[in-house]
Amino acid sequence: MTDLATGAAILGTGGGGDPYRGRLVAEQAIKSHGPVRVIQPEELDDDGLVVPLWNIGAPVIGMERIEKGDEGVRALRALEAFLGQKAVAIAPVEVGGSNSTMPVRAAALTGLPLVDCDGMGRAYPEVQMITPTLFDIPATPATLVDAAGNCIVLQTTSNLQTERIARAVCVQMGGRAAMAGYPMTGRQIREAMIPGTLSLALKIGRSLREARARHDDPIQAILDVTGGFRLFSGKIVDVYRRIAQGWARGHFDVQGADETVRVDFQNEFLIAQTLSGRLLCSVPDLIMSVDSQTGEPVTTESLHYGFRVTLLGIPCNGRWRTPGGIALGGPGYFGYEQAYQPVETLIWEGE
Amino acid sequence: MTDLATGAAILGTGGGGDPYRGRLVAEQAIKSHGPVRVIQPEELDDDGLVVPLWNIGAPVIGMERIEKGDEGVRALRALEAFLGQKAVAIAPVEVGGSNSTMPVRAAALTGLPLVDCDGMGRAYPEVQMITPTLFDIPATPATLVDAAGNCIVLQTTSNLQTERIARAVCVQMGGRAAMAGYPMTGRQIREAMIPGTLSLALKIGRSLREARARHDDPIQAILDVTGGFRLFSGKIVDVYRRIAQGWARGHFDVQGADETVRVDFQNEFLIAQTLSGRLLCSVPDLIMSVDSQTGEPVTTESLHYGFRVTLLGIPCNGRWRTPGGIALGGPGYFGYEQAYQPVETLIWEGE
Repeated sequence: MTDLATGAAILGTGGGGDPYRGRLVAEQAIKSHGPVRVIQPEELDDDGLVVPLWNIGAPVIGMERIEKGDEGVRALRALEAFLGQKAVAIAPVEVGGSNSTMPVRAAALTGLPLVDCDGMGRAYPEVQMITPTLFDIPATPATLVDAAGNCIVLQTTSNLQTERIARAVCVQMGGRAAMAGYPMTGRQIREAMIPGTLSLALKIGRSLREARARHDDPIQAILDVTGGFRLFSGKIVDVYRRIAQGWARGHFDVQGADETVRVDFQNEFLIAQTLSGRLLCSVPDLIMSVDSQTGEPVTTESLHYGFRVTLLGIPCNGRWRTPGGIALGGPGYFGYEQAYQPVETLIWEGE
Repeated sequence: MTDLATGAAILGTGGGGDPYRGRLVAEQAIKSHGPVRVIQPEELDDDGLVVPLWNIGAPVIGMERIEKGDEGVRALRALEAFLGQKAVAIAPVEVGGSNSTMPVRAAALTGLPLVDCDGMGRAYPEVQMITPTLFDIPATPATLVDAAGNCIVLQTTSNLQTERIARAVCVQMGGRAAMAGYPMTGRQIREAMIPGTLSLALKIGRSLREARARHDDPIQAILDVTGGFRLFSGKIVDVYRRIAQGWARGHFDVQGADETVRVDFQNEFLIAQTLSGRLLCSVPDLIMSVDSQTGEPVTTESLHYGFRVTLLGIPCNGRWRTPGGIALGGPGYFGYEQAYQPVETLIWEGE
């Protein structure tokens, strides 16, 4: 579970919440309710109902406002009741900190299998930013529940509208809520989700742990598994973070030997560029900050002055590099003028 | 229908939307779908489902963002589907401009009878401000729908929470949406709602019309039917209105011979006091501005510099004068330090 949480935090590009808390939560659930059966997408029946589960809101709020524990299950049950159909499996929507481990808890509590896949191959801040949107799969009916017992069912005209309404509800729920949505058949899961990403997160976490045990370079171990690149190393010299409209927004600056690199975030890291304007990496490719010594992920809410971090750039899943994928999750959506360029290209140009 | 719309606008204390538009809407529905059967609360079976319907949002937005027409019916149908039960009647939640005529349209479209009652005996800006709240009747399950086709089902832990979440959703829906909520049995309608308020609105509108036809004082006609008082007359010399958090908020100043009176509003008029601080009337009593010549209501969105208006104060239904009623809808809730005093008392003291 430590490996999953660590690996998911690296793929989580800063968002998805604290991996340590997420791990404790999932471990406790498994201890109390027994192990979780992880299945591959091809094991699903064509027509069975699979329900993705996730937390919405600023992860930093989750540090102080602890969930009750059964929010994910209540969101699932409310969606099943609305659909009049029982789920045969649960799926994560993103690999990223607590959004990888939250479905593990729900699977432990319900006894449902967890599908080894996600809808991003990374983490993204907004509800519509998921590969099923590229396949015209609606986010709704979807449900939101909070710790207090409020429950909302949404049926919207677009996945962007789902994001807008769910975000507004989430803010009223205290900035953090559990969601069930994107109900899919097994066939749709195979078509629209990215397979094997839970396994990948586990593998990243395991490689990192084993490299440290062997006293090998832990960062190189991450790069070997993910096909990523070292973008920059230095010391965090500025962190500007605020909670706005339900998100953690801001930037942090990493000062190196000759240059300073700024990373902007909206829960997740969006773009890394030097203060002189040279682009190092942008969404949809993954930007991650890890402790330069240990390789441990440093997520948005744990950024602090003085941390020595290495920024990594990891190529995203190919679905995000299509014109539709770039429109949905590229720099333009977040208001940046820079055109998307694959991180490999930027690395070659920089060398 | 003109009489209903006019009378409802007077009881609507500035909110509830433009009575002219509301009237056209209801008239058109009746013309297309036949007349609406109005029934008294005592005609309801004890256990039949009665669904209150209303519009949420800033009425001024309704001036430009015309509804599609079937939002009320879709909100009703979504709530019926969620409850697994058909409604036997529709009820208004407030008498006030379009929120009196909107359920008329829904009744015409569905053929369901409309109950002669409401939950305020006036208009109020927030969802929880309704006499059923005083009887611990939950606002949810409730539904919100917009013109585009988005539909939300809410189940909340309190009626205040319903207000907060519904308001946030409404803002995302463009500032205006139809709601169905406070589902009640016939027995609950009789216990918790205020009977006869549609008839009262009709009677006010008719008295006003007839007084004008007789060249009698139209304002006196309103006062005779409502038991209200003239508070102040003068010219509107300042209007400050903004759309904030889904409400029309602001104030307007009426300059008289010796003094100027300021009326604050949040969709509805909340408090009327002189600039020197003398209180004339406050919620839960009704404050209304009418054209000094014609007695026609001047609602929040039609306030303009130069209008010559008379401010009226009308005693509220006795349920609002209980400690619970004053806590729910009195000046303290809206942040005013003044303790509530019945308008009759204030009038006697002022004389």
